[in-house]
Amino acid sequence: MPAIPVRAQEDIIRAGRRMDARGWVPATAGNISVRIEGPRIAITRSGGHKGFLDAFSVIEVDDQGNVITPQARPSAETLLHCQIYRLFPNAGAVLHGHSVAGTVLCITETAPSLRITGYEVQKAFEGQTTHETVLHLPLFHNDQDIARLARVIEPHLAGAALGYLIRGHGVYVWGPTMDVALARLEGLEFLLECELQRRRLMR
Amino acid sequence: MPAIPVRAQEDIIRAGRRMDARGWVPATAGNISVRIEGPRIAITRSGGHKGFLDAFSVIEVDDQGNVITPQARPSAETLLHCQIYRLFPNAGAVLHGHSVAGTVLCITETAPSLRITGYEVQKAFEGQTTHETVLHLPLFHNDQDIARLARVIEPHLAGAALGYLIRGHGVYVWGPTMDVALARLEGLEFLLECELQRRRLMR
Amino acid sequence: MPAIPVRAQEDIIRAGRRMDARGWVPATAGNISVRIEGPRIAITRSGGHKGFLDAFSVIEVDDQGNVITPQARPSAETLLHCQIYRLFPNAGAVLHGHSVAGTVLCITETAPSLRITGYEVQKAFEGQTTHETVLHLPLFHNDQDIARLARVIEPHLAGAALGYLIRGHGVYVWGPTMDVALARLEGLEFLLECELQRRRLMR
Amino acid sequence: MPAIPVRAQEDIIRAGRRMDARGWVPATAGNISVRIEGPRIAITRSGGHKGFLDAFSVIEVDDQGNVITPQARPSAETLLHCQIYRLFPNAGAVLHGHSVAGTVLCITETAPSLRITGYEVQKAFEGQTTHETVLHLPLFHNDQDIARLARVIEPHLAGAALGYLIRGHGVYVWGPTMDVALARLEGLEFLLECELQRRRLMR
Repeated sequence: MPAIPVRAQEDIIRAGRRMDARGWVPATAGNISVRIEGPRIAITRSGGHKGFLDAFSVIEVDDQGNVITPQARPSAETLLHCQIYRLFPNAGAVLHGHSVAGTVLCITETAPSLRITGYEVQKAFEGQTTHETVLHLPLFHNDQDIARLARVIEPHLAGAALGYLIRGHGVYVWGPTMDVALARLEGLEFLLECELQRRRLMR
Repeated sequence: MPAIPVRAQEDIIRAGRRMDARGWVPATAGNISVRIEGPRIAITRSGGHKGFLDAFSVIEVDDQGNVITPQARPSAETLLHCQIYRLFPNAGAVLHGHSVAGTVLCITETAPSLRITGYEVQKAFEGQTTHETVLHLPLFHNDQDIARLARVIEPHLAGAALGYLIRGHGVYVWGPTMDVALARLEGLEFLLECELQRRRLMR
Repeated sequence: MPAIPVRAQEDIIRAGRRMDARGWVPATAGNISVRIEGPRIAITRSGGHKGFLDAFSVIEVDDQGNVITPQARPSAETLLHCQIYRLFPNAGAVLHGHSVAGTVLCITETAPSLRITGYEVQKAFEGQTTHETVLHLPLFHNDQDIARLARVIEPHLAGAALGYLIRGHGVYVWGPTMDVALARLEGLEFLLECELQRRRLMR
Repeated sequence: MPAIPVRAQEDIIRAGRRMDARGWVPATAGNISVRIEGPRIAITRSGGHKGFLDAFSVIEVDDQGNVITPQARPSAETLLHCQIYRLFPNAGAVLHGHSVAGTVLCITETAPSLRITGYEVQKAFEGQTTHETVLHLPLFHNDQDIARLARVIEPHLAGAALGYLIRGHGVYVWGPTMDVALARLEGLEFLLECELQRRRLMR
């Protein structure tokens, strides 16, 4: 079994520090992965704070969620990462974080998606070339049964070029590289924070 | 008298820096302790900023609050730390911080506890395996007489797996290690911030 | 062709880090330029995160927006920078950032300008000597056609001693040096944040 | 003329960095001083960002505001610092910062003082031993004529154990040492932020 490449470990460790600096991985929340190649995926070990990862914190799974690293327990939501890698062959990195803005918006929004329009930062997402587009960010109900949650999400993923949100739980975004995934996460969190503040002012 | 272990000093200094970076130890507020072993407790000295602690800032008390370090004055709320170590044999670290969200929620909430439900981050707390649980975080009235406050708190502590709040004052959390206590503090502060923002949006 | 001076590169890199630390360059948003001399302008390359710039991220254009650096693609809004350098001979640095406060204020304000008065920090802007002045910060509708947007802005620029805002997009400020431009950006963002919070409290 | 002690320079530089990290010295706002001894005062030079001070940024004035350092121009509000040193013989350091919370509260509060009660952090202020005290933080109207402003403030200073606020402008606090002054500033800003959020929730 070939070792996890150092570059994959470093991308994950760096992403965790960045997400921690923004307050998006409270307690032991959040998880982070990169595609090594084909079905080989490097992902954060279950538990532990994502702002203080080291090489040991990164383990390998295949794209069905089977653990390759001996005696390792992957993040609870590993199946959601695997699903993204299977459905998006160009996905090279997946990020799952928890922000206050995203959590609060999800809990108070009753529609099946968040409507986002009029923001220049929308252009951070693939295929978006103008602020005039209306983006619909899917919202799913939280479920501790991750396999069941994945089945609910699956039919909506094809159109989810931006990522998606799980109510009271957090956001999933991805990109061809870790840098792009991080930029999209940042763009999405910026939009969520703007939406939260806009709603407060417009109430 | 054996010296305070370096590890205990370092855990406390590190926790203080982290809490300061998040704005949870304003002025000289907050206090931090670790159990050395059995009834031996290392705790922050009274006064001083918790973001700039050094080895001198950490003193020893026993689990009745008696000061062991010569000529030292422990934090005013030392008895609340001792109470937690006495009642929870597995408690290895106790954190007390002041956040804006916690302070404002406590002051505006008239019920005897804060009701928290629907958040994935609830799972940061012992025995919590789903966001569907309803957590009741006890709220106590502030009292400068710490011995009296401790007596009020005592009957409620057994069920307080998450920690508790003192109105206008701050939060207490604990864990078997400093890392776990810090993760719980972060999880709890995240939940308090979400609750504050949710209430503002739902009003 | 003379190289871009190291000082110009360093000013831009430093400004990007500062803006990132404040959360004003989410995803790949924002752009930053300095005047090298006369019509020679150093500006950030298109794409990439402005918090992690290096010397390669800085390219040269002339004040009509023509690219001088071989095979380089400048920021989409390069023409808006060039316009400022042409109209203000003393402009030595131009900053464009996206803040949550600015974005939300612009989207919710229906007047053609933001009215700002009563703040001491207004004095951070040229020619302002008292908090009693009423400042009118121009608000323009966003447009992906930057040349057209520039033509709309042009007649309003002469009076725009403070900078201006593009709705849902962000703020433009400038100054004789990068330090002054950064101070004005910070002053302006402070005023926008105050206005946002004042409006929320006064509603 | 004896030089300004290095300790005084370092205290001021350090305070500026700390205030900048919290966002309390936007643009070139804020000023910082320490008493060297008796009527000798070290204070920040006019202009410049308080987060990036160096030894040159610190100049000397006497307690009437006369400039001792050759060719130096002190901060515009130097007279307010001098007034505090004259009226409080134990004042060793004075801080003036601008926060969003303080600015917005001052602008929206019509009473001549801010009423603060019920907060444990009140104990950060001299002579305060309980959260049950009612503190009245004086609010003054801003005035670009600092000598006139000082005359308005003077009769209220004796009772101002906590510091005071100038509307739309910022806060003044002091203490026997820079560490104590910084702790009080942090405590006061925490209370102002809590008050702002409490008012928003209670409206």
